[in-house]
Amino acid sequence: MQLEIDRSRKEPVHRQICARLREMIDTGALPAGTRLPPTRLMARDLGVNRATVTAAYDALGTLGYVEATVGRGTFVRPNPTSAVSPGAEEEASRTLGRHASNSNDGRPRSGTGTGAWLPSFSRGIDNLANYPTREKLAIDHPQPVDFAALFPEEDFFPVDIFGGLMADILSRRGRELLQYAAPEGDPDLRAFIADELRRADTPVGPEDILIVNGAQQGIDLLLRVFIDPGDPVVVESPTYWSILPALAFYRADVVGVPMTPSGMDIDLLAGILHKRRPKLIYTMPNFQNPTGVTMNLETRRRLVALARQHAVPIIEDDYEKDLRLLGKRLPSLKALDPSGMIMHLGTFSKGLFPGLRLGWIAAPPAVLERLSLLKRYSDLHTSTLAQAVIAAFCHEGHYERHLKKLHRIYRERRDCVLGALEQHFPSEVSWTRPDGGYALWVSLPAALHVPELLVEARKEGVIFTPGNYFFDGEQQQNGFRLSIARTDQSAIERGVEVLGRLIRRRLRNGKNRQQPQQGATPRALPHL
Amino acid sequence: MQLEIDRSRKEPVHRQICARLREMIDTGALPAGTRLPPTRLMARDLGVNRATVTAAYDALGTLGYVEATVGRGTFVRPNPTSAVSPGAEEEASRTLGRHASNSNDGRPRSGTGTGAWLPSFSRGIDNLANYPTREKLAIDHPQPVDFAALFPEEDFFPVDIFGGLMADILSRRGRELLQYAAPEGDPDLRAFIADELRRADTPVGPEDILIVNGAQQGIDLLLRVFIDPGDPVVVESPTYWSILPALAFYRADVVGVPMTPSGMDIDLLAGILHKRRPKLIYTMPNFQNPTGVTMNLETRRRLVALARQHAVPIIEDDYEKDLRLLGKRLPSLKALDPSGMIMHLGTFSKGLFPGLRLGWIAAPPAVLERLSLLKRYSDLHTSTLAQAVIAAFCHEGHYERHLKKLHRIYRERRDCVLGALEQHFPSEVSWTRPDGGYALWVSLPAALHVPELLVEARKEGVIFTPGNYFFDGEQQQNGFRLSIARTDQSAIERGVEVLGRLIRRRLRNGKNRQQPQQGATPRALPHL
Repeated sequence: MQLEIDRSRKEPVHRQICARLREMIDTGALPAGTRLPPTRLMARDLGVNRATVTAAYDALGTLGYVEATVGRGTFVRPNPTSAVSPGAEEEASRTLGRHASNSNDGRPRSGTGTGAWLPSFSRGIDNLANYPTREKLAIDHPQPVDFAALFPEEDFFPVDIFGGLMADILSRRGRELLQYAAPEGDPDLRAFIADELRRADTPVGPEDILIVNGAQQGIDLLLRVFIDPGDPVVVESPTYWSILPALAFYRADVVGVPMTPSGMDIDLLAGILHKRRPKLIYTMPNFQNPTGVTMNLETRRRLVALARQHAVPIIEDDYEKDLRLLGKRLPSLKALDPSGMIMHLGTFSKGLFPGLRLGWIAAPPAVLERLSLLKRYSDLHTSTLAQAVIAAFCHEGHYERHLKKLHRIYRERRDCVLGALEQHFPSEVSWTRPDGGYALWVSLPAALHVPELLVEARKEGVIFTPGNYFFDGEQQQNGFRLSIARTDQSAIERGVEVLGRLIRRRLRNGKNRQQPQQGATPRALPHL
Repeated sequence: MQLEIDRSRKEPVHRQICARLREMIDTGALPAGTRLPPTRLMARDLGVNRATVTAAYDALGTLGYVEATVGRGTFVRPNPTSAVSPGAEEEASRTLGRHASNSNDGRPRSGTGTGAWLPSFSRGIDNLANYPTREKLAIDHPQPVDFAALFPEEDFFPVDIFGGLMADILSRRGRELLQYAAPEGDPDLRAFIADELRRADTPVGPEDILIVNGAQQGIDLLLRVFIDPGDPVVVESPTYWSILPALAFYRADVVGVPMTPSGMDIDLLAGILHKRRPKLIYTMPNFQNPTGVTMNLETRRRLVALARQHAVPIIEDDYEKDLRLLGKRLPSLKALDPSGMIMHLGTFSKGLFPGLRLGWIAAPPAVLERLSLLKRYSDLHTSTLAQAVIAAFCHEGHYERHLKKLHRIYRERRDCVLGALEQHFPSEVSWTRPDGGYALWVSLPAALHVPELLVEARKEGVIFTPGNYFFDGEQQQNGFRLSIARTDQSAIERGVEVLGRLIRRRLRNGKNRQQPQQGATPRALPHL
C-alpha cells in the first residue's frame, strides 16, 4: 500500500494527501484508532514540506476524520463519515485553501446550526475514541470469509423454541414480567446459573449471582466498583479488546502480563505484584480471547495463591465456558478459592443469543451487594421478560441440547481450520490449538506487517482481527486472531488458502518493511 | 413512636436498644438511609449512659444493619438482613457482651468462610448505601393503598397486543433480532421517537437518538460523559430520588435549586451560575418528580437563555411527557434552543412497560457520539428484540391508543384525589394540582414529622414517599409525594381519609415535636 502523490497533476499535493487518506479511512484500510505517522516522518517519506502534511491533517480534522491529541499524535476517529457536520466540508476546504494552519482543533462542530458550542466533557470520555470498533472490519465481496467475528451464526439460533416459550410465558406471566423488578435478577435464572456453577464445583448459591446486560456490563460494573483513576489493573497481553477502552475511560493504569502457552506469565505477575499493588487482575482462564489459550491447573493454583497473598481481587471472565470442545474441564479460579475475592463472569452471548444481552456475575457478598446497588442506579435491572424466557429455556434442557449441537459443528470446524492451516501456511507461521471457543491466534514473523496483510486479504474478501487490537501498550506478539464462529468449512478452506498465499508472497517479496519505531506502536499506520 | 426501655427487665438496656432498633429496621419503620440520632442525643433522650448507646450501635454495625461514617453519623444500610453473615450474630453478641466498644467497623464480613478479606473499593461506591430504596416501603395489610409507587399498574398492560407483535416479529426477523447490533439502537424505534419529537416541535432526526435501558441508564451515561469528581451539578430541590445516589457515586457537588410553582427558582439559578460554573443542569420541566409542577414558558425561556449565556449543558428529563392529562403542551427546552447543548431524555417505563427497560436520549452530535461510545463499552447495546417489538407497537398506533386509555383512567383518578384531599385534609395542608403524570406533592406544616406520619399510616396499610427522599442536602419543604399510579378510586378515597385523619390528629395532639437539629437532616430518625 502506497500513498501515491502525483506532482504532475494540477491538484495541490496537500489536497491529494487529504483525499488519499480520506479514501483509506472510508474504505476501512485505516481503521478507527489508527495513528497517522507524525507529520515530520510523513513529510520526509513523501519528500514534501511538513506544512503540506499539516494542512492535510488539519483538513481531515475539520472533516471529523481524525483527531489530534497533544503529545500523542493524530488518530483516525470512529465513524468519521457520520461525524461530518454541515459546513465542515466548506471549512475543510478553507483550511486546505490556507495551505497551512496551526489549528489542532479537529473536533466536529456541534452541528445543529449557528450558535452551537461544545461543553467540557469528563476527563475519561475522549479516551474511548482512540479504539477500533468491529464495524470498521466490513467486507464487500461476493464470497466473504469473516474470520473476525466472535459471535455465533444466527442460522443456528433456536428461534422457534425461544418463540414458543416466549408466547407461553407472556400469556401466563406477561403482566408481572413487563413490570419493574429487583436489580439482582430473575430468581429462576439465578438458580439455574448457580446450579450450573455448583455442578462445575464452584460453590455459589442463587444469592451470589447478579444478572447483567451481557459480560460487557459485568466488566463495566466491576470496574466502577473497584477502580479510581490511576489505579493499576493487570490484564493479559493480548487481552479482550473491549476491556481496553473501558479501562481507558476509567483512567486505570493498565499493566499487561504476556500470555504463555499455559496462561498468563505467572512469574512476571509475581514480580509485578511485589513491585506495585494492582487494584484488580482481569483474566480469561478458558479459551482466552484472543489467543485461545487455556490456563493450566498449575498456573491457576499459583494465580489464586498470589492474589490471596497480595490481597488483589480477580475478575475471572469465563465468557466461553460452555464451548469446551475437547478435553476435561479445569476448575475455575473461583472453585480453587471459594472464599477468595474472585468475581466470576459469564454470558449467554457466545452460546445462545447475543442480542438479548444476558450475562451474570458470581461474586462474594460484599461485592455483590455493591454491584447490585450500582446496577440499580445504572439501569434499575436487566429486562425481566428476557431473563424469564431464558430461564425456562435453560431449565427445560434446551440450552444443553443447543450446546451439544454447537459442539458438534465447531469440533468439525476446528479440525477443518487446523488442517487448512497445516496445508496452506508456511513454516515461519505458527498458531494455537484451542480446546474450545471460536478463536485461535496466528503468530507471524516480527517483520510481517499485519495491517498491510489485512488490507490485501480484504480485497479478496477475507478479514480477521489484527493483533494490535488486543494490546494496550507495546505489541509483544505479532499476529492476528482467527475466529471460525461464522465460517463454514468451505469458507475456512478458501479463507486460509488466501491468507496462506498472501503471507507466503509477502515473506518471499520481502514486503515486510516494518519500521521498528512504528511497529512498537500498536495501532500505527502501515508504512506508506 | 417511642423507643421503649424497660429497666425492670433482666435484659440489659443496651441489648434492649439494639433489639428495638433492629425490629424497626426489619419492619421498615427505619428505612435504609435513615440516620440514627447521635449517640449523645439518644443517650440524653433515654436517660442512659452514652457508652450504652454506643454498644448498641456497634452491635447493629456488626450485624450489618447500620454503617458508621466518620463525620457523617450512623446510617441504616440497605437490605440489612441479607447482609448478616455467618458469625456476625456471634460477634455482635460479643460486642454487646463487652458493653462498650470503640470499633466503628460496621461492615459485614465477606462471608464465605474463613480466610475471607475485603478489598478496597472505588471511592464512590459506598456513597450508594446511604440512600433509601423503594423496597423498604413494603406494606403488609389486607387493603393496601400504595401512594408511593410511580409506575403504571400491570393490569393496564396491553400484553396481548405485545404478545401478538412479538410472535410475528420473532417468526419473521428472529435470527436478526437475537444477534448483536449497533449501540445506537433500532432504526425503526429511533425514527418513531424522532418523529414524535418533531411533532412536538423539537427538531431532531433519528441520527440524534440513542436508545438506552430506560431513563435511568440515560442519566447514568450522561453523568459519565460530563462529570468528574467535584464538578458542581444543579438539580431541582426536591428532585428525582434516584439521581441523587448516582451523583453521589460520581462524587459530584450537588447544588439544589428550590422548586417554585412555576418551576425551579430561576433567579436563584442565575445567582448560582454567576458564582460558580456548574458542569450540568438537571431538570424535569413537565410534571416534575416529586412535585408534579410544570415549568411555565417564561421560566423555560429564561432557563435556556441562562444555560446558553453560561455555556452549561442541560439534561431535560421528560419522563412523563406522554402523560399530559390537561391543558396545552409547552415547548420542550430542546425545542426552545435546538442548537443548544440540551440532552432530552424519555422513557417507555411510565406509559408502557417498565420491565422492558427502554428509554432514549436525544442529544447534539458531539454528545451523541460520545454517548454511543460509552454505551458500547457499558453494555454494547439495548436488547434488539425488545426495541423492534416496541417500534412495531408504536408505528401501528397501539402506543397512542394505549395512552388515550391511560389518560382517561388517570384524569378520573386525578379528579378523585383532588376531591378527596379537599374533603379530608385540614386547612394547614396544601398540595399541587399537576396537569399530568402520576404524582402530586403535599406540603405540611414544618413541625409535622413526615417519617412518623408514614409509620402510623403504614399500620393502616397506607404508604407514600416521604419528602426527605428527594432532597440531597437540607430539606427545604416539609411534605411527601402522593402518587395515584397504582391506586383506584376506592383506594384513593380510603388512603386520603386515613392520611387526613392521622394528620389532623398529629396537629391536634401537638405530636409534632420535631427537633430543629434533626429536622434539618433529610433522613434523620423520627424522634424517639
